[in-house]
This record gives sequence, C-alpha cells and structure tokens, in this order.
Amino acid sequence: MESRTNSSQIEVLTIEFRQFVDSRDWGQFHSPRNLVLALVGEVGELAAEFQWTDDVEVPGMLADDGFRKSVGSELADVFGYLLRLADVLQIDLADELRKKIAINEVRYPADKSRGSSDKYTSYE
Amino acid sequence: MESRTNSSQIEVLTIEFRQFVDSRDWGQFHSPRNLVLALVGEVGELAAEFQWTDDVEVPGMLADDGFRKSVGSELADVFGYLLRLADVLQIDLADELRKKIAINEVRYPADKSRGSSDKYTSYE
Amino acid sequence: MESRTNSSQIEVLTIEFRQFVDSRDWGQFHSPRNLVLALVGEVGELAAEFQWTDDVEVPGMLADDGFRKSVGSELADVFGYLLRLADVLQIDLADELRKKIAINEVRYPADKSRGSSDKYTSYE
Amino acid sequence: MESRTNSSQIEVLTIEFRQFVDSRDWGQFHSPRNLVLALVGEVGELAAEFQWTDDVEVPGMLADDGFRKSVGSELADVFGYLLRLADVLQIDLADELRKKIAINEVRYPADKSRGSSDKYTSYE
Repeated sequence: MESRTNSSQIEVLTIEFRQFVDSRDWGQFHSPRNLVLALVGEVGELAAEFQWTDDVEVPGMLADDGFRKSVGSELADVFGYLLRLADVLQIDLADELRKKIAINEVRYPADKSRGSSDKYTSYE
Repeated sequence: MESRTNSSQIEVLTIEFRQFVDSRDWGQFHSPRNLVLALVGEVGELAAEFQWTDDVEVPGMLADDGFRKSVGSELADVFGYLLRLADVLQIDLADELRKKIAINEVRYPADKSRGSSDKYTSYE
Repeated sequence: MESRTNSSQIEVLTIEFRQFVDSRDWGQFHSPRNLVLALVGEVGELAAEFQWTDDVEVPGMLADDGFRKSVGSELADVFGYLLRLADVLQIDLADELRKKIAINEVRYPADKSRGSSDKYTSYE
Repeated sequence: MESRTNSSQIEVLTIEFRQFVDSRDWGQFHSPRNLVLALVGEVGELAAEFQWTDDVEVPGMLADDGFRKSVGSELADVFGYLLRLADVLQIDLADELRKKIAINEVRYPADKSRGSSDKYTSYE
C-alpha cells in the first residue's frame, strides 16, 4: 500500500472498479442516468431480500450464513454503483457525507431531536 | 486521529455517523428494514434529480453548481444510509465489494464481455 | 359516461391523466426512461412514509387520517406514473396483470405453495 | 360481466389478485411494509430493463417483441403489488388519482406551466 499513501480507501475502491469497467470497455454504458437506473435495480434486489419477513424475524435470519451472504452481495452491488456514479459525476462521497452530517448536526440539535423520528422541519 | 491508524476511511465515516445517531438516541429507529426503506427513499430523491431531462442534457446540467450540489447532497444521503445499514448488519462493505468484483472478473471475461452490456448468463 | 361505454375504467383514468399532461404540453418530458425515474421517485416517497416505524405500529398509524391521507397521496402518484408509462409504451396493464396471474397460477400450484413465501424456483 | 355491473375494473382486478393470494394463504405475508418492499423490488426490475441503453435507442427497442414482453411483465408486477397494497390499506386508487389530478390542476395552471418541467413551488 506504500504507493497509495495519498489515496483514501474510497478512492482505491473507486479505481479498482473503474479498472474492471475500463478493461471491458463498459464506460460507454455508464452515463449518469444509466448508473442511477442500475443503482435503483440493485436497491430493489436488496429490498426484495427483506420483503416476505417481519421486523421480529430479521435478527434470527441474519444468523443464517446464506442470508447474510445474499444481503452482503446486494450491499456490494449498491455500493459499487454508488461509487461508480460518484466517479462519473466527479463527486467526493466522503466529503459530501461529512457536509451532510454537519448540516444535520445543526438541523437536529441533540437536545431537541433525542429519541424522536420527527423531521427537522417540525421544530424549526 | 492517531488512535485510528488501524481504521479504514469507511470505518471512520461509519463511526462518525454512528456517533451522530447515538447522541440523538436514534439507534432505536435503525432496524434493518427501516434502513432499507430509508435508503429506498433517498435513492428515489436521487432518481428525481434526473427525471425531467434526457441523456444529452445531463452533462450540461452537471456544469451548474446548484444541480451538482443537489446531486451531491442526494448521493450523501444514499451513502449515509448504506454505511449505516452495513454498520447495523455488521457487514464489511469494502470486503463485499472486492469479493463481488472478483466474482465478476470470472463471470465476465474481458475478451468475451468487451463492449457488451449482455448479462453474463448469455455466454456462460 | 354514456359515450364511454366501451372504455374500461383504466382507459378512462389514462385518458384523464393524458389530457392533463397534453393541456400543459408535458408530453415532451414523458419519455419511457423519464417516467421510470419519476415512478422510482414516487415509490421512494411511499417507502419513506413507512421508514421510521415498525410492523406492529403500522395498523394503529393507519387509523390516523393524516397518515392515511399521505399514504393515499403517494399511492396516487405511483399509480399515475404507472398509468402514464403504460400509456406511452402502449401496454395494457389489465391484460398484463391477468397474464401474470395466469402464469403464477401454474408456477405456484395452490397445494405446493400454501402458506409458503418460497420462490417458485425452489419447487420446480 | 353482467353480475359485476356495480364493480369497477380496478375492483375486479383487485378481487382476482386477492383470490389468488387467499387460495395460497399468502395474506399472512402481505403486511403494508412487506408489500411496499415487494413493490420496490418490482420497480427495481422495471428500472433494470432500461439501464444499459439510452433515450434514443428506447423507441427502437420497443419494436422488439421480447423487450416489450419483458417490460409488460414488469409493469404487471408493479401494478399487481400496487393493487394489493391499496387493497390491504383499503385505499381507493382511482379516487386518490382523481383527487391528485384535481390538486395538480390548481397547482399547475395550464398557462403558467405549459412546456415547463419546473415544480409548482417555483411559481406559487
């Protein structure tokens, strides 16, 4: 990893996925709208893993290796297209997430929002 | 950050988001199915950013700071709930993505899949 | 309604929505992919209505007029874009649904599938 | 159809799907949140049909019988779960859609909104 001391983990993963794509000449298919649709498809597969159960049964299901493997595989697909979309759009995911957390620190003061799922607009 | 020298960037972001959640006692709302539904909601907002345009106009729109900011904000929301879901499920996103890329290296040999958007099942 | 005796309810609703669209010259925005993205956005809003609760609380929430109204409004949005997409694609929703039910009658024989959420591929 | 003169087409389709479900004792799986997740899964499959193409190619693809059949099948799945969700929630889809169109007739006056994809909030 010495040669990557200036690259973050997200950048490294982004580059690994980009190389996989480029070696197959698939960049031509990766327009922003196509990647959004692909992301939607993968989120749909993730949702389907949880569709015919209920909240109470999920913890038990997660003890099953087959279910964990399926869910992990779907999370990988979602993560992959999210990284790829950010790559194509030249948007820094880590930076955007930190900005969003900072905004929400202000929108949702800990003392007002504690234990409440209300939207911030309800106490602004 | 010295005490985190062994933590990856994704772990650090996960911990930052977890602390934001815990300081508001919001962990009670973050069941796996709830986080999946929240992720779906955010992906829906991302899709909506691209709904009334067309492929040709998107590159021009991305030169607009307001549009880029909106898209970056939606990507942050998707990324945040994805990290949070992986945290709750104790699934390693980076590890899962690398496993998936390795699987797809085999499913899609570069010479067979080059320039084709066909699903791997079509040439297995 | 006398002049519409040969039109089904779905055709009538489709025409009502089409007239709303045409009187605003919005057909230019209603390409298939745009309508799919719009449908995704509305399904995301529907999912968000159910995100910070749990299965046990939902029946009680549905007794609340405000919640019912919000959910009904989101269902209308999903239904509207689904009708509009079928209209643009010239696909008969009622016919397609009946064909799908007929397929599933065969895939899921009542005696084999009773009380089971397994996918048909598990007992074919 | 004489015996159904008081049932709308949507009611008839809803009852047909309900009978399919009840004869398999699947109602136990059809909680509102489960049906929302199932709807998300099907919308994901619909989105995936349009993911590796572009706006210009779609009309040509729609001339292909195989593609039309796949898209029709996905629309049927989305429509089915939407009807089923409305059935379980006891929400009248046609009534909700008409209410929504009426609201949008006011929100989007034809003269102000003609040819514009701006959200109504921009000219209220």
